[in-house]
Amino acid sequence: MLINKTDIRVRYKDTDAMGIVYYANYLVWFEVGRTEWIRSLGLSYRDLEKGGLFLPVIKASCDYKTPAHYDDELTVITWLESLRPVRLTFSYEIRCAGQLIAHGSTEHAFVNEEGRPVVLRKKNPFLWRKLSRALENDPAG
Amino acid sequence: MLINKTDIRVRYKDTDAMGIVYYANYLVWFEVGRTEWIRSLGLSYRDLEKGGLFLPVIKASCDYKTPAHYDDELTVITWLESLRPVRLTFSYEIRCAGQLIAHGSTEHAFVNEEGRPVVLRKKNPFLWRKLSRALENDPAG
Amino acid sequence: MLINKTDIRVRYKDTDAMGIVYYANYLVWFEVGRTEWIRSLGLSYRDLEKGGLFLPVIKASCDYKTPAHYDDELTVITWLESLRPVRLTFSYEIRCAGQLIAHGSTEHAFVNEEGRPVVLRKKNPFLWRKLSRALENDPAG
Amino acid sequence: MLINKTDIRVRYKDTDAMGIVYYANYLVWFEVGRTEWIRSLGLSYRDLEKGGLFLPVIKASCDYKTPAHYDDELTVITWLESLRPVRLTFSYEIRCAGQLIAHGSTEHAFVNEEGRPVVLRKKNPFLWRKLSRALENDPAG
Repeated sequence: MLINKTDIRVRYKDTDAMGIVYYANYLVWFEVGRTEWIRSLGLSYRDLEKGGLFLPVIKASCDYKTPAHYDDELTVITWLESLRPVRLTFSYEIRCAGQLIAHGSTEHAFVNEEGRPVVLRKKNPFLWRKLSRALENDPAG
Repeated sequence: MLINKTDIRVRYKDTDAMGIVYYANYLVWFEVGRTEWIRSLGLSYRDLEKGGLFLPVIKASCDYKTPAHYDDELTVITWLESLRPVRLTFSYEIRCAGQLIAHGSTEHAFVNEEGRPVVLRKKNPFLWRKLSRALENDPAG
Repeated sequence: MLINKTDIRVRYKDTDAMGIVYYANYLVWFEVGRTEWIRSLGLSYRDLEKGGLFLPVIKASCDYKTPAHYDDELTVITWLESLRPVRLTFSYEIRCAGQLIAHGSTEHAFVNEEGRPVVLRKKNPFLWRKLSRALENDPAG
Repeated sequence: MLINKTDIRVRYKDTDAMGIVYYANYLVWFEVGRTEWIRSLGLSYRDLEKGGLFLPVIKASCDYKTPAHYDDELTVITWLESLRPVRLTFSYEIRCAGQLIAHGSTEHAFVNEEGRPVVLRKKNPFLWRKLSRALENDPAG
């Protein structure tokens, strides 16, 4: 299984009046995580969009375990959790010096420029194969 | 059951390069929804914090049904889903002209200034009673 | 001179670890202010974009006078400061119960879908006349 | 003069419906730039705050030259522009592959926990000397 680890530094912008990171920002870091996961596959999400494939989020969830603070160095750990004909799910962990800060997942549909669902295996067989292999722990894909 | 409806206008800031609302922003609107729900109870979350009670989010989730766009007028519908001694859950719907855009929930712990869990019935019996009655459809609380 | 006043409630999201509003958020409120200013002219910025006219920001500035806090009720006061063939400038004040919180301005270019500058008087004479009159204190435009 | 260069990758979150980076985000990147500039001085802004010194923004401005897009790799270039007894100014350039995207500045007051202005030379003579030397191109400070 292909796992990506990306470092994030907490910005002042990310904090709130409780002195901790505001909860919606974890979803932004999930986005950074999956972008880098796709890059570690040898692809870029920007190019997928240029090729007419979009992956809008259809479901997101996050469990908050320990607050993160300004200037903390966090690691976003991302992996592909499941792959189906018209959607996929990424899972994430956010850690600070090893300690679990939060974990969650996002589910994405495969759609075209018009926002219509597409079957990935037909729309982009190359990507389908890459993702299938990443799921089976073969990053050479 | 006490239900609050609050209107939100989609800002350019809320949109992304796909031309739709970025997914993390729904959690911000959930925050607006629960703030106004508490206000409709005759209280203010700001005052609860001044009294030493904080409600950090410990879990959040959102299902995205239909994309929202710039300048759309949305309604955030908020209600108290469950209440337990040390935590509560809010549920939300986001609608545009009646159509369901997204729905979700957030779970919150009751903690004090030091971030330690507190039993709400002991910490703030008045609020506990208000919330219990809101759950039972008695906004007179 | 046409002046628009729009109310904004400070969200938890807008605050930072200093317990006050994070400075970049004022630019978001300026956006809300100019959107509503355009609406008070009887137009909508969304429709201007559909008609092929875009107003990207080319310059922005803000002076911060007094911090704003969570749950504060602010008023964004917006007016058209200047109008030239290929650009315009909006000015803004943010007030809380009358007190000046911040003031600033944004300068915008008139561009088409391809991002190329256009002369507003030629591109959209109706809007040019509306704006000219708004500047001269004739909201009947 | 001490100059810091920090790399930033544009997130989907940073873009808007025009397909380019939303203008308020540049101020967030300026924050990243000055945090890293202070770190390159051998200090951390987090520690300055723990020592009772805060640097709220009192003025900010930005000139937007060329739009930035999703997934662009940007460089934030930061330097100390001026230093006075009770305030300082940072200047910034944002570049993409050498090309100027935007430039701007932020002015900051020196204040204590209560938000009251302090004379830096008295409050923190060590930092005052460090900053003075950074301005004079002596990062050994």
